[in-house]
Amino acid sequence: MTSASLSREIQLVARPQGAPKDSDFALVERELAAPGAGQVLVRNLFLTVDPYMRGRMNDVKSYTPPFALGETMTGGALGEVLASGVDALKPGDLVQHDLGWRTHALLDERQARRVEPLPGVSPSAYLGVLGMPGLTAYAGLLDVAAFKEGDAVFVSGAAGAVGSAVGQIARLKGASRVVGSAGSDEKVAWLTGELGFDTAFNYKGGPVAPKLRSAAPDGIDVYFDNVGGEHLEAAIGAMKPFGRAALCGAISVYNATEVPTGPRNLGLAIGRQLTLRGFIVGSYTRHYPDFVREVGGWIASGELKYEETVVDGIEQAPQAFMGLLEGRNTGKMIVRL
Amino acid sequence: MTSASLSREIQLVARPQGAPKDSDFALVERELAAPGAGQVLVRNLFLTVDPYMRGRMNDVKSYTPPFALGETMTGGALGEVLASGVDALKPGDLVQHDLGWRTHALLDERQARRVEPLPGVSPSAYLGVLGMPGLTAYAGLLDVAAFKEGDAVFVSGAAGAVGSAVGQIARLKGASRVVGSAGSDEKVAWLTGELGFDTAFNYKGGPVAPKLRSAAPDGIDVYFDNVGGEHLEAAIGAMKPFGRAALCGAISVYNATEVPTGPRNLGLAIGRQLTLRGFIVGSYTRHYPDFVREVGGWIASGELKYEETVVDGIEQAPQAFMGLLEGRNTGKMIVRL
Repeated sequence: MTSASLSREIQLVARPQGAPKDSDFALVERELAAPGAGQVLVRNLFLTVDPYMRGRMNDVKSYTPPFALGETMTGGALGEVLASGVDALKPGDLVQHDLGWRTHALLDERQARRVEPLPGVSPSAYLGVLGMPGLTAYAGLLDVAAFKEGDAVFVSGAAGAVGSAVGQIARLKGASRVVGSAGSDEKVAWLTGELGFDTAFNYKGGPVAPKLRSAAPDGIDVYFDNVGGEHLEAAIGAMKPFGRAALCGAISVYNATEVPTGPRNLGLAIGRQLTLRGFIVGSYTRHYPDFVREVGGWIASGELKYEETVVDGIEQAPQAFMGLLEGRNTGKMIVRL
Repeated sequence: MTSASLSREIQLVARPQGAPKDSDFALVERELAAPGAGQVLVRNLFLTVDPYMRGRMNDVKSYTPPFALGETMTGGALGEVLASGVDALKPGDLVQHDLGWRTHALLDERQARRVEPLPGVSPSAYLGVLGMPGLTAYAGLLDVAAFKEGDAVFVSGAAGAVGSAVGQIARLKGASRVVGSAGSDEKVAWLTGELGFDTAFNYKGGPVAPKLRSAAPDGIDVYFDNVGGEHLEAAIGAMKPFGRAALCGAISVYNATEVPTGPRNLGLAIGRQLTLRGFIVGSYTRHYPDFVREVGGWIASGELKYEETVVDGIEQAPQAFMGLLEGRNTGKMIVRL
């Protein structure tokens, strides 16, 4: 057995109460068998941590089962094949898969998807702007929220992996106005200075509703919600007739230990004829070909920019995840191994 | 001038704080001119009072402007032509129009729509099951909530004009289960005994969520909301994946003097991929021909039943309206003159 088959892995050992902490996780080592027929052994290069994982740490039924205690967590990963029992995959090939939170993975053929390195683009982009978060932005804006040219768009968590793509796709598709909220002045400056948002505001320090009113005095047609809570209420209040909200995430309440309040102004949805629609990206994979063509093209042409916040080392994965929930990332939070 | 042209009318003289009271209204008499060319003088036979009118008594911008203080209120009415300056309308013709809350109305031709008396059906049905409330039920269920055969449907305010039609249309269109909530045991018995609801419950006395869980243990696909508040939260909690809510009314909070709470479980909309859509019937008049054909047919065949709670006399109109907000009606609340 070679050292390649010794995997260092992060397990969930306690269900977080409120914000996750170091002691909720444990780093373990595990020996992996050599790949048999139909299997590949992969050394992971990049792991992703995403907000949705917080929900899976709770022991509640949801659209995906909760992470099991005492087992290695899972999540998006990108690695290179070390040894292969699969004809179509050879050592050195890049593969994307869902056995993240570990340095090595032994995969069945159907669990691994070969990807091509893109010129001038880090393969980690397959975990972000060209991966699940990018597709979430694309399908959520264009399908779930039924964006159309001329709409005024507001996106919360706008400096995150999904939000930064939403705002730029809206701009490239002809939004009349693109407004974003983020949690620091630096992020706000990045949104307007680099990504082409028309306006952005720092949601910290003072209520969101008046900031949104100033940023979009004529109201909004579309709200892409990554945050929930106060942001959602402010967005409902700013919506024009027939406005649509795509409910994608609620990071503001993921660590909540008390029952959050709902939007007190939801009654406005009747007279204004608003639509609020929740979604998970897995239901919208039919958009993947269009997404790759359009967003891939914009990345190649430089019209759509993306950022990564990179944390090094498997042992830092829990910290990367905790930092994500605290907004310590700009763009996609990535763990590099 | 004949006595026919003396109209007795209800004006709003104070904006209600909380529940409306007698002193918010005044009965006045007004002399109407004889109809000129292009006008008709109508004696009203039936007036409608509807929940949406409560919102228009507040001085807030909404999809319709507020009722003006010191002016006669408006609303659906059905009357007979007394004198006509219009070729197409002659004395004795039945017309439907929007100058309710009064015994007589002087109308321009474009304000009056001639309707045919239906055999065996009171013309007041044009203000209820065959009118705006019926179309609200039909379009809200089939279009806004995208009902499809086999769906499990829950409707609140199920003994009201809209709710009683929603449940029956759902049944006739092949719902797998029709559940209604109402505010008295008598109404509940009427829903299951007369209207063919599979289950109904009295929402008073104890929380709604467990009652709904018992009534629909496998969950619901569609919720038609006439009530808002606790009902909406319970419905969200009971929704199956890809469930849809048509937000039609929120009678539970129309008299609220404090800001209501929102549904605290709205975050479930993400993972369950729910859609909540508010609407007003005026945006769905394109369904009117289908509505008349289908619902008219079901009434003629006896498959769809309706009830009216009739209050006599223009001076009782405010009481009828207050009673409506308190749920003292079964089916459509009608004022007969």
